[in-house]
Amino acid sequence: MSSDPAGAPAELPASLDDVYSFLGPSGTFTEAALKQVPEARGKQWRAVNNLGEALADVVEGRSVAAMIAIENSIEGGVSVAQDALATIPGLRIIGEYLVPVNFVLVARPGTTLADVRTVNAHPVAYAQCHQWLDRNLPEHGHLPASSNVAAAASLFEGSAADAAVAPPGIVDHHDVVVLADNIGDNPNAVTRFVLVSTTRSVPEPTGADKTSLIAELPDDRPGSLLDLLEQFSTRGINLSLIESRPVGDALGRYRFVIDADGHIRDERVADALLGLRRFSPSVMFLGSYPRADGMRIEFDQRYRDEVFTEAREWLASLTDEAPSA
Amino acid sequence: MSSDPAGAPAELPASLDDVYSFLGPSGTFTEAALKQVPEARGKQWRAVNNLGEALADVVEGRSVAAMIAIENSIEGGVSVAQDALATIPGLRIIGEYLVPVNFVLVARPGTTLADVRTVNAHPVAYAQCHQWLDRNLPEHGHLPASSNVAAAASLFEGSAADAAVAPPGIVDHHDVVVLADNIGDNPNAVTRFVLVSTTRSVPEPTGADKTSLIAELPDDRPGSLLDLLEQFSTRGINLSLIESRPVGDALGRYRFVIDADGHIRDERVADALLGLRRFSPSVMFLGSYPRADGMRIEFDQRYRDEVFTEAREWLASLTDEAPSA
Amino acid sequence: MSSDPAGAPAELPASLDDVYSFLGPSGTFTEAALKQVPEARGKQWRAVNNLGEALADVVEGRSVAAMIAIENSIEGGVSVAQDALATIPGLRIIGEYLVPVNFVLVARPGTTLADVRTVNAHPVAYAQCHQWLDRNLPEHGHLPASSNVAAAASLFEGSAADAAVAPPGIVDHHDVVVLADNIGDNPNAVTRFVLVSTTRSVPEPTGADKTSLIAELPDDRPGSLLDLLEQFSTRGINLSLIESRPVGDALGRYRFVIDADGHIRDERVADALLGLRRFSPSVMFLGSYPRADGMRIEFDQRYRDEVFTEAREWLASLTDEAPSA
Amino acid sequence: MSSDPAGAPAELPASLDDVYSFLGPSGTFTEAALKQVPEARGKQWRAVNNLGEALADVVEGRSVAAMIAIENSIEGGVSVAQDALATIPGLRIIGEYLVPVNFVLVARPGTTLADVRTVNAHPVAYAQCHQWLDRNLPEHGHLPASSNVAAAASLFEGSAADAAVAPPGIVDHHDVVVLADNIGDNPNAVTRFVLVSTTRSVPEPTGADKTSLIAELPDDRPGSLLDLLEQFSTRGINLSLIESRPVGDALGRYRFVIDADGHIRDERVADALLGLRRFSPSVMFLGSYPRADGMRIEFDQRYRDEVFTEAREWLASLTDEAPSA
Repeated sequence: MSSDPAGAPAELPASLDDVYSFLGPSGTFTEAALKQVPEARGKQWRAVNNLGEALADVVEGRSVAAMIAIENSIEGGVSVAQDALATIPGLRIIGEYLVPVNFVLVARPGTTLADVRTVNAHPVAYAQCHQWLDRNLPEHGHLPASSNVAAAASLFEGSAADAAVAPPGIVDHHDVVVLADNIGDNPNAVTRFVLVSTTRSVPEPTGADKTSLIAELPDDRPGSLLDLLEQFSTRGINLSLIESRPVGDALGRYRFVIDADGHIRDERVADALLGLRRFSPSVMFLGSYPRADGMRIEFDQRYRDEVFTEAREWLASLTDEAPSA
Repeated sequence: MSSDPAGAPAELPASLDDVYSFLGPSGTFTEAALKQVPEARGKQWRAVNNLGEALADVVEGRSVAAMIAIENSIEGGVSVAQDALATIPGLRIIGEYLVPVNFVLVARPGTTLADVRTVNAHPVAYAQCHQWLDRNLPEHGHLPASSNVAAAASLFEGSAADAAVAPPGIVDHHDVVVLADNIGDNPNAVTRFVLVSTTRSVPEPTGADKTSLIAELPDDRPGSLLDLLEQFSTRGINLSLIESRPVGDALGRYRFVIDADGHIRDERVADALLGLRRFSPSVMFLGSYPRADGMRIEFDQRYRDEVFTEAREWLASLTDEAPSA
Repeated sequence: MSSDPAGAPAELPASLDDVYSFLGPSGTFTEAALKQVPEARGKQWRAVNNLGEALADVVEGRSVAAMIAIENSIEGGVSVAQDALATIPGLRIIGEYLVPVNFVLVARPGTTLADVRTVNAHPVAYAQCHQWLDRNLPEHGHLPASSNVAAAASLFEGSAADAAVAPPGIVDHHDVVVLADNIGDNPNAVTRFVLVSTTRSVPEPTGADKTSLIAELPDDRPGSLLDLLEQFSTRGINLSLIESRPVGDALGRYRFVIDADGHIRDERVADALLGLRRFSPSVMFLGSYPRADGMRIEFDQRYRDEVFTEAREWLASLTDEAPSA
Repeated sequence: MSSDPAGAPAELPASLDDVYSFLGPSGTFTEAALKQVPEARGKQWRAVNNLGEALADVVEGRSVAAMIAIENSIEGGVSVAQDALATIPGLRIIGEYLVPVNFVLVARPGTTLADVRTVNAHPVAYAQCHQWLDRNLPEHGHLPASSNVAAAASLFEGSAADAAVAPPGIVDHHDVVVLADNIGDNPNAVTRFVLVSTTRSVPEPTGADKTSLIAELPDDRPGSLLDLLEQFSTRGINLSLIESRPVGDALGRYRFVIDADGHIRDERVADALLGLRRFSPSVMFLGSYPRADGMRIEFDQRYRDEVFTEAREWLASLTDEAPSA
């Protein structure tokens, strides 16, 4: 395993605003996500070894933002990323990016598919190619790698593996031959990445926004998750993600990772946040930001902003001593 | 106090604040309710013929307030009063009073129970004494009267009735003999009265308050009443009264008369009013006022005022550009 | 007051099946409802003085069924009828009928509108013509009558009234002149009648059915009415009627009168009845019967009968020791 | 893929009932769980390489049951196990076992803590010792292993690692020295295991049972998860586990892994299963079995069995032609 996949930066950048951290090395899906960020073009990109390092860069001021994988269409939420956001204070999501996930089987030059006995692969990638591998290499063994790129790199570092599962771009970085491509079990597989920062500035509403939250349930009485969900449903807010994560102190205690349609400056979302805060012993606002898919939020018109402001005016008028004309 | 419910007062009062309207004549349960109002002592009391007149006095400025019956423990809500409050704009309930309901059977001097063939009674009073009358006068006939006092008065105005159902105090006003007392079927029967005004000033919260509302449902899709009730239950607010009344334009269209525990200045009640206003096509706030029974409102501490204000401060802090320390 | 509005039957009918009771005398809206019942044609119709007598006829076996008014589009539920159904055991509704409600102002021959000072009217009828009377007879007085027909009859029995509010058919029964017709405030006013029996046989489902129920809430904790309503909403059942009635033992204790779309033999309705029975300390099934308006029940197809039977089969298969093939 | 990680059985067992599969090799936490199963004592235990092999043994009849890890108090649900149960038909959970999770840091004899540069560890174990490692070996590198025992074994198979994270029992199987013990970050960490079989026979209710289910939501309209949860809350059933897992065909589509308090033979649980089956496009019953913690299920007495049977009898009586006495 490489102890320094990205290589430490030779010198400090002129300004914090110039640095973006990502899970390296060059060639990862995370790098592909970072390439989608217009603000990051021409800036310094800092490849790090793992999620913890990426977030530490942000928290400790070595970079302005970090790109991290947050959800996979096959494997679900990336638990370690969700847990990090739940426990490290001060982080905010400021952007969302989708990267199609596709894999190739690569080997050292001269190897053929028939030669492959053992496959090196990151566990998540391995799970996503499981059906292809079982079908085409029924007797293969599996060696786990720490990243998709590390899997390929291991072929040249004395690994016992004959082949590796890697992203297609691997051929730009290593002298490998492609034994098979498109070996992922689901051709529509996609990974969702988020850009994380410590800025307090919330991106402007676009009408196609998402708000990320993490909330604990007050206790485990029947129905407390129901009460949490009602904070959204009674304001006509759809949830695109709801995942439970153990709080970690005992079996049966959960926090919930939530992506809600809409922006904190939408009245219905702000009102749901108020309700959530009153209800939950611990709620974290992770940010409102434009959706990667750009899909405009559809919602019942009885939850539009005007309905909320009109109700507030009505309530205020009730206790005015002078009658409202 | 005017002794002539229908006749106009001989002279105008010095000030509007000096006049209270009530369903007369003297001796009614409504007068008993008005006697409980400290502010009304020593003022002019205007006895009127019916609810419409009482409310017209208030709306048209002939009196500062009117006492009206709003609910009966046996017969339920007084529909005509509920409908009047729902359709006459500008009315506010400023006080609530309970009067135990008790009846006597009275007759012209010289009459005995054995002589009674026909009984004159206000329909509501008749219904409340039904079991006693069936048991003791199995073959009696019923003549309806327009008020409890009018029933007794009719005995001296050529009515075909031999006896009348009346309040106990009737003996102070008419030369009748009591054939039987305590003839009500339920010894705990009580009628709830409210004092109605056009003031915009809401009585101060006491911790033992009630808030009266009338709300229409948005449409008759399954579950819209459920949505209405959730506006209260999700804020921990108990309802002491919920009655449906037809809107009147078609079968199956209802408005709901609601008494909620708490005061409009309680955060949870104010928030429920906001939710109700956003939900309902038509909602009327009829007032917040001290409960007649003085019972302090018990509610889950997670709905106390501080929880609401803290949540608002938290929400505000989220979009502050400067991090909250 | 007449002690015998309908005239006692001269002889007992050959069979109980030949007798139908209704609120007489001839000419009432109730009689108009009974005329809509095909099974009642050519049978003996027994006119009675009041609701109690009509239901007693059924309970005590003097008639096979009684027609009673149950809801009015202006005044709402007929409380006394609802309360009778809630407290007299063994009654079942077997049919529903709608009668348009229309009123005329009648007087003794020779009277003109200008002569009218006092109007005799049943309180419900009076309420429904209130606007017309206020507009055309601003200074009139009101004398209450025990039925719409009795109001007109009183004109010939020494009443102090100059005119009476009555159904249009009154001219077939009394020698009156019509001073004005269509005096009802709402031209679409309609009264809903039900045919009540003690039969245990439930009318066959037609696809356009209604199920009537009366249920008490378990206690007055916040949300118990919500729980009751959920028994219906979670099975996709719309309620065409929901009315609260005081249980009568104390303020704040209610039972609810409910008309639900569908028939007890519809799986979703039967399942809701099970849920209701488990929930409520007291629930009465008043019958399933064809709707008067013949409107077919629309409901989400995920609540159709097959879904319920399939689920039962699935559940049974889970605990079969032999695997389901 | 190794065909013999744990030592292949020398001969086939006399009977299928004699074989239990578990994640080997000897010394794993899974083996510790299997030691808690009285029925497995004295039978043949088959150590396999991974979850897929363990479940294949059961489905293909090579063993009567397999022990698998299903939830971890720190890391949450074991996704791959949850997904396997959701997609492999015919599996049933027949028992639940808890194993305290504790780790030691081991090395080849002669190594000291100061010598350690690289640590071999299964990713889940690594995550659970993260704080200790960061504190005591701030500059360590991590090599992933395929199991906790494999991590230690690698020390003798040419791994570049200097130490390994392993279960305390490792000292019985490998010639290692313990550099540190109790290095887990949470002293109360526990892993939940389940015994999986294809039997159709459900363990008898004990009063301290758990029912495991996997259900898909019908679509992503707001509130469908709410509807799912209501199937339980309206029957007073607490959920000890609720986890979302992506269905895998697109982002935003989830199935839910649920552990509900109670047994399928409890009426309230059976009724919830019916509701769930009607609601969900796909629901799998994974079994009812005694809870590992032996904690008796507390539930509101209005959901006890008798309430359900009484309601069914009542419903049946309603459509009996003969009145129920």
